[in-house]
Amino acid sequence: MRVGDTWYRTIWVGDDGWSAQIIDQTELPNRFVMARLETLEQVAEAIRQMRVRGAPLIGVAAGFGIALALRRDPSDAGLQRAVALLAATRPTAVNLRWALDRFAQRLAPVPSAERAAEAQRLAVTMADEDVAACQSIAAAGETLLREAARTAGNGRPVNVLTHCNAGWLATVDWGTALAPIYRAHDAGVPLHVWVDETRPRNQGLLTAWELAQHGVPHTVVVDNAGGHLMRLGRVDLCLVGTDRVAINGDVANKIGTYLKALAAADNRIPFYVAAPSSSIDWSLETGESIPIEERRAEELGLPSEVAVANPAFDVTPARLVTGLVTERGVTSAGREGLLTLFPERRP
Amino acid sequence: MRVGDTWYRTIWVGDDGWSAQIIDQTELPNRFVMARLETLEQVAEAIRQMRVRGAPLIGVAAGFGIALALRRDPSDAGLQRAVALLAATRPTAVNLRWALDRFAQRLAPVPSAERAAEAQRLAVTMADEDVAACQSIAAAGETLLREAARTAGNGRPVNVLTHCNAGWLATVDWGTALAPIYRAHDAGVPLHVWVDETRPRNQGLLTAWELAQHGVPHTVVVDNAGGHLMRLGRVDLCLVGTDRVAINGDVANKIGTYLKALAAADNRIPFYVAAPSSSIDWSLETGESIPIEERRAEELGLPSEVAVANPAFDVTPARLVTGLVTERGVTSAGREGLLTLFPERRP
Repeated sequence: MRVGDTWYRTIWVGDDGWSAQIIDQTELPNRFVMARLETLEQVAEAIRQMRVRGAPLIGVAAGFGIALALRRDPSDAGLQRAVALLAATRPTAVNLRWALDRFAQRLAPVPSAERAAEAQRLAVTMADEDVAACQSIAAAGETLLREAARTAGNGRPVNVLTHCNAGWLATVDWGTALAPIYRAHDAGVPLHVWVDETRPRNQGLLTAWELAQHGVPHTVVVDNAGGHLMRLGRVDLCLVGTDRVAINGDVANKIGTYLKALAAADNRIPFYVAAPSSSIDWSLETGESIPIEERRAEELGLPSEVAVANPAFDVTPARLVTGLVTERGVTSAGREGLLTLFPERRP
Repeated sequence: MRVGDTWYRTIWVGDDGWSAQIIDQTELPNRFVMARLETLEQVAEAIRQMRVRGAPLIGVAAGFGIALALRRDPSDAGLQRAVALLAATRPTAVNLRWALDRFAQRLAPVPSAERAAEAQRLAVTMADEDVAACQSIAAAGETLLREAARTAGNGRPVNVLTHCNAGWLATVDWGTALAPIYRAHDAGVPLHVWVDETRPRNQGLLTAWELAQHGVPHTVVVDNAGGHLMRLGRVDLCLVGTDRVAINGDVANKIGTYLKALAAADNRIPFYVAAPSSSIDWSLETGESIPIEERRAEELGLPSEVAVANPAFDVTPARLVTGLVTERGVTSAGREGLLTLFPERRP
């Protein structure tokens, strides 16, 4: 996406032909700076510290991490060590696990000498696939926004509420929840986005920064405000990302998503979740068993003598989700809806 | 309440016999400092800037403001001017309006020469009445906490979730939502309090500071976390304060309260609102017409180029409120419940 006059992705191969270049998201929105990752350990640190973040992006970043690891140690043991280290960085997003499994499978039969190069090719392919998936999500979601604009009528902007950042910064490009917004905005659909601040990490400021770069009207509110806005009729539609979708349609996403889904249901406002298939965990029957990352107390920024708990995600039950917006279209949040779009997953 | 070795109220008459002394809450929890208010304008500023805050306390503070105003201008015009200035400081809490109406009525027939002294007596009486009301709320609410402890069984602490600060800092002493917690804790009921951070003003840090001073176990969480904790079964009961209760039982309270009430209902967790009768607006049929204060964008602490909305309160519909804890006991959130406790209000 455009930053000033230049188009960026969130991760790419450096000019040297082998390092991974990223936008260091811990510096945003204050400073737009890039970082160069040269080792497995640097990639793992970048994921852990959220220099790269967002479920789709950390999957792809992990792929680049594998490629860098294999430059130093292309043995089976080296591959396994890299997979284990990266898998342990963040537990909730299934995209990470999904990407690592794919790398492990694809690279196992490849001779050591060719593994690093093959891993890099695979990482680049995965990045391109992510972009393509986000573009398809944009098209599917645009339909929903156009319908909402028709319902709003008279050119009144459609008010979309989003939580956390599921924009291009959370993916390789375009985003999941924000991709339809960018596409609809570019097509002239009048939109205004309510941006949840998203404590404790304030990813809402990333969303506001993205939307400002793209010229989409938006307003930041504290996480407490969304229910009130919905009661006042000032939200037409909620659209968020996800870190893991269970087969029954339960959705893990940034902590606080569940509260907004409850408010949407209470006010009969559609609540959509943008979910590339890399976020679907076909091994999980329900959201109950999704591991929820507990992050460091320091993220709240309080004096150390204050006792703090800091769960980073919550699970929104499928009954509160109006639909999943995937790269194959919009479907209901549940087994039948998912299997209709992904028939190859039918047992 | 105790701070270190000394017992404090949040407002009292200075040693000079006429100024109003307050704890400057904008300095907490970092610094415990007092401020001396000598004029009407200083009191209005203290309320507006939230040096004194909390619905019951700003009602009493306004009374002190009237007394100070009448020292300079005890005329009818002076009284009216003081009432108008204070009424305009904050729109949502009805306690302010309630206190000012009471002062205007009581002082109108008093000769000018005696008005300032009479106003001060009335302010001190109102402060004492607030303390008494909070103590009665403590007793009524303690029963609920004891029941929850019995349900929890085996000495497991009762997990109470609270939002904002409805502790002694929000009243003259003891608090509304926190008063039962202090009383039950002192009586040996095992308790643990989940404290919502309460963005944007972080009144949860006042709550954590109060609870720490009193030795009550507690954990601060971001406002996004409460729903997740409830889904995990880690909350037994919610208990919050209020700025205004409509006759139908709708409750205005700090922004975000509605979201927690939704989560409590979704998880069948009792949601109680501590409401002294000074918070009940007998003139309002429903919560729809409660004025919601929009505060300055700067409170979010974001760069000035970021568009921000900052509504300070929301309305929780009565259907989500398990009960109101008043100084006359616990009752259902609705006309019949309220009129049972306050039969003198029957039309």
